[in-house]
Amino acid sequence: MRVRILTLFPEMFDALKSSVVGRASRSGLVEIETVDIRSFTRDKRHKADDYAFGGGPGLVMYAQPVIDAMEYASRPPFDPASGRRVSLSPRGSVLTQRVVERLARYDNLALLCGHYEGIDQRALDACVDEEISIGDYILTGGEPAAIVLVDAVSRLVPGVLGSSESARDESFSDAGLLEYPQYTHPRVVNGAAVPDVLIGGNHAAIAAWKREQSLRITLERRPDLLERAGLTDKEKGLVALWRQEQRA
Amino acid sequence: MRVRILTLFPEMFDALKSSVVGRASRSGLVEIETVDIRSFTRDKRHKADDYAFGGGPGLVMYAQPVIDAMEYASRPPFDPASGRRVSLSPRGSVLTQRVVERLARYDNLALLCGHYEGIDQRALDACVDEEISIGDYILTGGEPAAIVLVDAVSRLVPGVLGSSESARDESFSDAGLLEYPQYTHPRVVNGAAVPDVLIGGNHAAIAAWKREQSLRITLERRPDLLERAGLTDKEKGLVALWRQEQRA
Repeated sequence: MRVRILTLFPEMFDALKSSVVGRASRSGLVEIETVDIRSFTRDKRHKADDYAFGGGPGLVMYAQPVIDAMEYASRPPFDPASGRRVSLSPRGSVLTQRVVERLARYDNLALLCGHYEGIDQRALDACVDEEISIGDYILTGGEPAAIVLVDAVSRLVPGVLGSSESARDESFSDAGLLEYPQYTHPRVVNGAAVPDVLIGGNHAAIAAWKREQSLRITLERRPDLLERAGLTDKEKGLVALWRQEQRA
Repeated sequence: MRVRILTLFPEMFDALKSSVVGRASRSGLVEIETVDIRSFTRDKRHKADDYAFGGGPGLVMYAQPVIDAMEYASRPPFDPASGRRVSLSPRGSVLTQRVVERLARYDNLALLCGHYEGIDQRALDACVDEEISIGDYILTGGEPAAIVLVDAVSRLVPGVLGSSESARDESFSDAGLLEYPQYTHPRVVNGAAVPDVLIGGNHAAIAAWKREQSLRITLERRPDLLERAGLTDKEKGLVALWRQEQRA
């Protein structure tokens, strides 16, 4: 996979040089390159933005440097035919794991990071396939969102995760519930012991405990997920009981 | 505001040294410090994780180095009494701008980034006030999420944003809709012109155009937001009409 990131702040993407993505990058599985939009400005002062037509606070990024930067980013071996050009923006549709999976199927991704009030619409019309928002909160620009997207997509590229890391995925996404508490060595930490059931070796009891813990924590923090999670009738009864206890 | 970030990959947070957060950091408005969890491991090989009790794929981070790192992170001038300790995790409640605003009111934030399968629950019980997820997608670890959270919170610290940048906020969050298209100079780019209405100087017409564009783009990309957005009856009629056209 080849990722090209268009930004006014290329140095922010040093974050992608360590950990899992850094390893994938060094091994050639994911090739990440930043393109500095400012180097495509045409005036002497390298001005990248200006006031909006029709008024309003804030500054809008010029169309031309963005269009030229995207043209540069799309040069070979980047292949637009098997590529997707994404703008990270609060105006986008919301990123979910399903969207991550879809984007991971492209061999070439160009990510455009806006700053200030936004980007001139004519640049978006000319050179962006879709706009994506990573969540309902306001960032200083698209860069942190692009870091998130590259991280999420890279880990789905075959070979990037070790087998123990990638196995995690299925258990996590399939259940549609939040994960149960995890414990590792030693058995006692500052007087707190690992729950007995996890040490007993009774696999059915362990599975039941994990499932109940997942249900409890999901009810507490993400009740919206329970609706979609495909609970058994018995589990639905349990959740209804817990809801009554919460109210009491 | 003082932010301390507990992580196995401190170098990822170089991303916070540029742009708006970097400026805030250099001017002393936001003090960011990373704490390397691995330096609190106690064995010779600096092992930070191990297999989970009760089975399951992946490795779980040891409790002790996390607890010790949090104790170190909480030393003065960090003040736990006016502080909040947050773990970035897919098991958390979902980050929204409302949560960002709440966290921005703390003078001291300690952010814990997990990796691998997660963190031993006893560390979370001992030294975390809340768990937060930035969205419904899977990351390689908590670090990209912490970058997002620091970025979102920092821009609410008084003085961090310039007046034109901060003015943006209110217009964006109040409407509860996605933003209308933005245009700046020049009037024509590659044959594409700025919409006439934005140049005409008729403020009522401009406001009406912006509102209609916001409604259209919100219906297209985030229909969920329309329910909460407080539309007038006339606007509700318009949206109903567009929905019919979409179906046709």
